[in-house]
Amino acid sequence: MESFNRMFHPRGVAVIGASANPKKMGYHALKSLMSCGFKGYVYPVNPRYKELFGLKTYPSIKEVPDPVDLAVVVVPSTQAPLMVAECGKRGIAGAVLITAGFKEAGLEEGLKLHEELAGEARRSNVKIIGPNTFGFVNLHANLNASFTPSFSALRRGPISLVSQSGGVCHVLMPYALEQGIGFSKIVGLGNRVNVDFPDMLDYLASDPDTRSVALYVEGVDNPRELMAAAKRTVKVKPVVAYKTGRSRAADEASWSHTGSLAGNYRLYEAAFKQAGVLTVSDSVELVSAAKALAFQPPARGRRVAVISLVAGLGIIAADTCEGQGLILTRFTRETEEALRKLLPPYTIRTNPVDLGFVANDPDTCGNAVEIVASDRNVDAISLNYIYSWSEGFMELPVKWIINAFKAYGKPLVMCLRYPKNIWDAEKQQLEDNGIPTFPTPELAAKSLARLCEYGEVLRKLGVNKDEGASAFKGSS
Amino acid sequence: MESFNRMFHPRGVAVIGASANPKKMGYHALKSLMSCGFKGYVYPVNPRYKELFGLKTYPSIKEVPDPVDLAVVVVPSTQAPLMVAECGKRGIAGAVLITAGFKEAGLEEGLKLHEELAGEARRSNVKIIGPNTFGFVNLHANLNASFTPSFSALRRGPISLVSQSGGVCHVLMPYALEQGIGFSKIVGLGNRVNVDFPDMLDYLASDPDTRSVALYVEGVDNPRELMAAAKRTVKVKPVVAYKTGRSRAADEASWSHTGSLAGNYRLYEAAFKQAGVLTVSDSVELVSAAKALAFQPPARGRRVAVISLVAGLGIIAADTCEGQGLILTRFTRETEEALRKLLPPYTIRTNPVDLGFVANDPDTCGNAVEIVASDRNVDAISLNYIYSWSEGFMELPVKWIINAFKAYGKPLVMCLRYPKNIWDAEKQQLEDNGIPTFPTPELAAKSLARLCEYGEVLRKLGVNKDEGASAFKGSS
Repeated sequence: MESFNRMFHPRGVAVIGASANPKKMGYHALKSLMSCGFKGYVYPVNPRYKELFGLKTYPSIKEVPDPVDLAVVVVPSTQAPLMVAECGKRGIAGAVLITAGFKEAGLEEGLKLHEELAGEARRSNVKIIGPNTFGFVNLHANLNASFTPSFSALRRGPISLVSQSGGVCHVLMPYALEQGIGFSKIVGLGNRVNVDFPDMLDYLASDPDTRSVALYVEGVDNPRELMAAAKRTVKVKPVVAYKTGRSRAADEASWSHTGSLAGNYRLYEAAFKQAGVLTVSDSVELVSAAKALAFQPPARGRRVAVISLVAGLGIIAADTCEGQGLILTRFTRETEEALRKLLPPYTIRTNPVDLGFVANDPDTCGNAVEIVASDRNVDAISLNYIYSWSEGFMELPVKWIINAFKAYGKPLVMCLRYPKNIWDAEKQQLEDNGIPTFPTPELAAKSLARLCEYGEVLRKLGVNKDEGASAFKGSS
Repeated sequence: MESFNRMFHPRGVAVIGASANPKKMGYHALKSLMSCGFKGYVYPVNPRYKELFGLKTYPSIKEVPDPVDLAVVVVPSTQAPLMVAECGKRGIAGAVLITAGFKEAGLEEGLKLHEELAGEARRSNVKIIGPNTFGFVNLHANLNASFTPSFSALRRGPISLVSQSGGVCHVLMPYALEQGIGFSKIVGLGNRVNVDFPDMLDYLASDPDTRSVALYVEGVDNPRELMAAAKRTVKVKPVVAYKTGRSRAADEASWSHTGSLAGNYRLYEAAFKQAGVLTVSDSVELVSAAKALAFQPPARGRRVAVISLVAGLGIIAADTCEGQGLILTRFTRETEEALRKLLPPYTIRTNPVDLGFVANDPDTCGNAVEIVASDRNVDAISLNYIYSWSEGFMELPVKWIINAFKAYGKPLVMCLRYPKNIWDAEKQQLEDNGIPTFPTPELAAKSLARLCEYGEVLRKLGVNKDEGASAFKGSS
């Protein structure tokens, strides 16, 4: 734990193999670190340079002054074991080995190097993320220890993602930038010498900056340890996993990719369920579910209410909720009566509730949200808004929504879609107050389903749900 | 047909109920029309104004001069039948009835009005889109006949969307703006007095600006006619449908929404399959499939090759392809041999092909694409690229990809994801040459599956596939 704390919050970082040449990985690693506003010391290491990016550059890791907690290593694979040994001698807690060409290579030489590396890591007591990784970021420490500077532009937030594939992180990064999704840690595990899913789960379970954990899993060597760590983690925060490698072709590819067979998907699915890990089957759904789980309390049951500004979205949301195993609740007589009084007769006032005919009356819309949220037959709410018309016609009932969420503490997720800029301030206000927004009704409904499932996980574990809920207080 | 031609390519448009007050729908309708660069005449109609938006405003439709082919009607529902009658007398071909409060109201008054409207439309021979619709757009005529000006910002393109819900169009519009997806027509059918799915399918089948048709269907009164029209359409261009209203709650809501029961989903699914209509189960998948189908020729079979810049995306793509019923092909010996020579030994050179270790060598990556595309065991290709590192390190092999597609005529779709701006020019060049790009490997693979299915539809119908393929020549 202490090693991980030092790695993720380093006082100083050495970049071994830093370079001024944009054709070299060592350039991009140093640039990434420099682009994230990191407040600690940065020590480029390369005997061929005196200075890089305006920083004093050291001929070897031995020469680097204190304090140094983390090394980003971008030297050729054959030199990697030696570098790890030197990091150990220098008292460095952890190393990111971006370098590839080890176990994933499937060649004798690569396997031999991997063994050598593992031995060196053991002897020198250095935690290794990688090899064959893009690296990791900790946005709460302004730390981009990866080879892609764009990760520095991500917003700081409550979601941590641990991935067996850097590709998935690179697919989700631009999406997160567009959607303003905030991350805590993003970790590419690579070939996993001595840092694997269980280690990350245990660390993130105790990490105050992480409120939900997303996993991208192809295959692991020690599924029992993963499931045991997951069981410990889900007691304190939700874990959602996207497991691939279902197909024969993918399974073989996974072996070559990360040196692990993906294994039987059904076995994993059952084991995840057993451990209380929620699952998704799409990369965007992974980060969406993690967002909902980070923002919102778990639900007390599966009875949902759907409210939407336009009927079509309500129908999609209702379909998706039922498809995910949720129940479109029947409102109490009191709710039915209150909605009948509030909304015009030609509107759908049962579940899903259609606000189409009062769309330009924010107080009536907000009042409907409040009435539905107060219903004892409602465990969770899917609220769907789209932008239509133009300026001056329609207003989002932001305060009503926030108040309804705060008053009843039931999960409330939103589909909120608009041409760029139009509702940015409203979206920010909603998310600052713990209401996650999603760009489609399907993503909102699927994320709501995970909140209902997490409630079931906690009930099965006997964890006090109100205790769980009280930990959730907005997005930042 | 002539009526539809006049509606979708009007020489003049009257906006009945136009207003200067942003709290009125008539303001937004006029603003939409004015914001799209429409080249024809615009005639605001409202006895309370002499001028609106700098345009001469007429007291009634009778006074509007020639030529006028289309009316956008935003008056209260009780006045709508009269307005339709007046449009008929004035020789107007079609009207968009944005006005709501008819059949969807579920009240006697509304039903009576709907009947009255239908009778008037019959007598006066006016085609009505709506009532209870947001309207329609035809980007090839710079025509935004809706109440939402933002639709004017959409790119012109080959996809037409016919929707029973305006909400779905409003969810997809910002997505299309972000992704640069181009549309031909977007039509909100609303309550369907005398213009329904079959009419639109027949019109779009003959529309040279439409290369694929996307349908959002809740429920229809005349499924047989829909299926018959679909059968005619799929012979000349692909049709993909997103059918909702599966759940009991959604079914009831659909009745209230558009006056039609959604009906049994399984029956629809079977009927769509029978008619050769492809299906999806998500709004973003709908537009993604339509994009692939508009850009690319149908596949000759289900044997796909997956190529990816990083192994993780290849594994996701392979999983998704197999999940969609596609077959990860086995390459010929010649291909295996050629890839073995081209790519380093520690790379995955079977299917999925991993370009990770040659990512910064565009010619080698491009050459691999060319080799795979030439394989006689390959019917379709999923190519997956993400942006990583930073400037100067990596180049997209755009010309190789375009040449491989053109040389072999096999469907080739791409996942192409990057932080904004970075590959915009490359994306444009790819799409101008008929290669559709998608933001996730899952969407690319699912869209590829629709291209394989459409090939099967055409083979079953005995339509010459090469004839089909030759019609597809880039995106614009």
